[in-house]
Amino acid sequence: MVRGTLDIEAYREKVESAHNIVRKWAHNTPILNSSAINSIVGCEVYFKCENFQKIGAFKMRGAVNAVMSCGITQKEKGFVTHSSGNHAQAVALSSKFAKTNAHIVMPKGAPKIKINAVKGYGAQVYLCENNEVSRVETCDNIIKETGANFIHPYDNEKVICGQATCAKEIFEELKEINVIMCPVGGGGLASGTIISTKLYSPKTEVILSEPLNASDAHESFLKKKLIPVVSPNTIADGLKTSLSKRTFEFILSGAKKIITVSEEEIIFAMKLIWERMKIVCEPSCAVPLAALIKEKNKFYNKRVVIILTGGNVDLKSLPF
Amino acid sequence: MVRGTLDIEAYREKVESAHNIVRKWAHNTPILNSSAINSIVGCEVYFKCENFQKIGAFKMRGAVNAVMSCGITQKEKGFVTHSSGNHAQAVALSSKFAKTNAHIVMPKGAPKIKINAVKGYGAQVYLCENNEVSRVETCDNIIKETGANFIHPYDNEKVICGQATCAKEIFEELKEINVIMCPVGGGGLASGTIISTKLYSPKTEVILSEPLNASDAHESFLKKKLIPVVSPNTIADGLKTSLSKRTFEFILSGAKKIITVSEEEIIFAMKLIWERMKIVCEPSCAVPLAALIKEKNKFYNKRVVIILTGGNVDLKSLPF
Repeated sequence: MVRGTLDIEAYREKVESAHNIVRKWAHNTPILNSSAINSIVGCEVYFKCENFQKIGAFKMRGAVNAVMSCGITQKEKGFVTHSSGNHAQAVALSSKFAKTNAHIVMPKGAPKIKINAVKGYGAQVYLCENNEVSRVETCDNIIKETGANFIHPYDNEKVICGQATCAKEIFEELKEINVIMCPVGGGGLASGTIISTKLYSPKTEVILSEPLNASDAHESFLKKKLIPVVSPNTIADGLKTSLSKRTFEFILSGAKKIITVSEEEIIFAMKLIWERMKIVCEPSCAVPLAALIKEKNKFYNKRVVIILTGGNVDLKSLPF
Repeated sequence: MVRGTLDIEAYREKVESAHNIVRKWAHNTPILNSSAINSIVGCEVYFKCENFQKIGAFKMRGAVNAVMSCGITQKEKGFVTHSSGNHAQAVALSSKFAKTNAHIVMPKGAPKIKINAVKGYGAQVYLCENNEVSRVETCDNIIKETGANFIHPYDNEKVICGQATCAKEIFEELKEINVIMCPVGGGGLASGTIISTKLYSPKTEVILSEPLNASDAHESFLKKKLIPVVSPNTIADGLKTSLSKRTFEFILSGAKKIITVSEEEIIFAMKLIWERMKIVCEPSCAVPLAALIKEKNKFYNKRVVIILTGGNVDLKSLPF
């Protein structure tokens, strides 16, 4: 696939069908705005509150689509994934809804609040070393033993089409949006957002954002070559992952630009959301607002929607 | 007025007219729910999110009704009030909307976040001693000098009818609600909620709640005699005030009961709202959920709405 050549019509039915599942098992989250934030940034900003989503993050959409679109015999074998956070909870809860087992591989050192939440949804947690080899090995062993279906956190078409339902809901509720913004980690939400924007609001620009300290998507996008992230060190723990070939191609074909932001800019935006929106959000979730504030002159007087991705943060270790 | 003898029809036009003003100048806040909290309490709970209201609290409703229902010459003289918090911001912003001056008398030692917010809305702040005599004296001096209109935080019919629009919106959106719950401090919101419940959903029970450490409403209600609070010491700083004769009569005529809760119960409920609802709420705001949890057996299987009153909390001094 070359930049701009995405066959978008091939996804219409897949996204519609994902939305039929998501409508049943997840929330159509509210869209909020704040006149205080509008006057700070000089444009009209709407926030799609996926931190109010089931499990507290947009990841529920992709996971529940991947789980619920399986046939009965496939479902019975259970599901397995590796995730340091929200995707883990999403697969756990989706498997619970499907009345089957979830096996979640998490790195040692993952936030306790996330490990406990996964266990709370009835999933079995397997702690692995914090590296690719250990992660893959642990997942493979589980698959060998149980026959469970692997759901990759983002390199999976069902997951991407599930995440696409978020932007779809936005365009069903708001018209004449100039820009839609979301953060980019592995690129699942970014890919889904690009798909739905092309399908339902093709004049809207998709602008992505990521931490300067994990800027693989930005570099890859500029060089038009997939460059994995090395030793990311950012407070935005949901955005430490690298793009896959699949998500990179979506981003190349549909993102207008990728804005990078510093740790200080992320924390400032996060605090602003807490104080002004009265919403609990995790650091990753604040990255698009940080990007908007950083380049606010370029957004002057526009109508912008930001996807607030999630709110699973340990209240005992806030950065402000 | 004897218990149960409130002439409710006298308020219909006043509340409708308040709602016409509130609709224009404030938000119809969203109603959210959480399946996690439902399973903890064993009933169906909806949260009317007044922490997403302008200035971050329901107080905007009453203040904007009191300000905007004045004639032009009255508005020109400006407005004055005493308040340690949200009512102060509400009068400040409402006066800004009305393009007139706001004079806000606040006790020394009020949270910085609240003083700064009031100043941010362009109001003039006058710090007084933390006692009734100093408060009244400071207000009286301002009124003498400026001719400004005094808006009492709760002992004011326009304010009460403004607060009534919150429950009115709830009953416009949700049907067959068994119980509506809000906290009681000075009784403005409680009175407004009683009025709208009698008008728009007379089968619904109004259940109030307050901190054990500031339980004047509970005592007064039981003894059918107005007993002011003495040295309240509670984390729920919005609920330290005493009822007025007017609000006490509304409460006598329309509250089913008043549940008191300990400081620990308030903090537990507050944390639950932050973690499960992903909403920033202040301690006072968590009091009704604390009451529901305390007496959850009595709410089993019911449909309950809780008014989440506000989210103005200093992020640097959280109790958990």
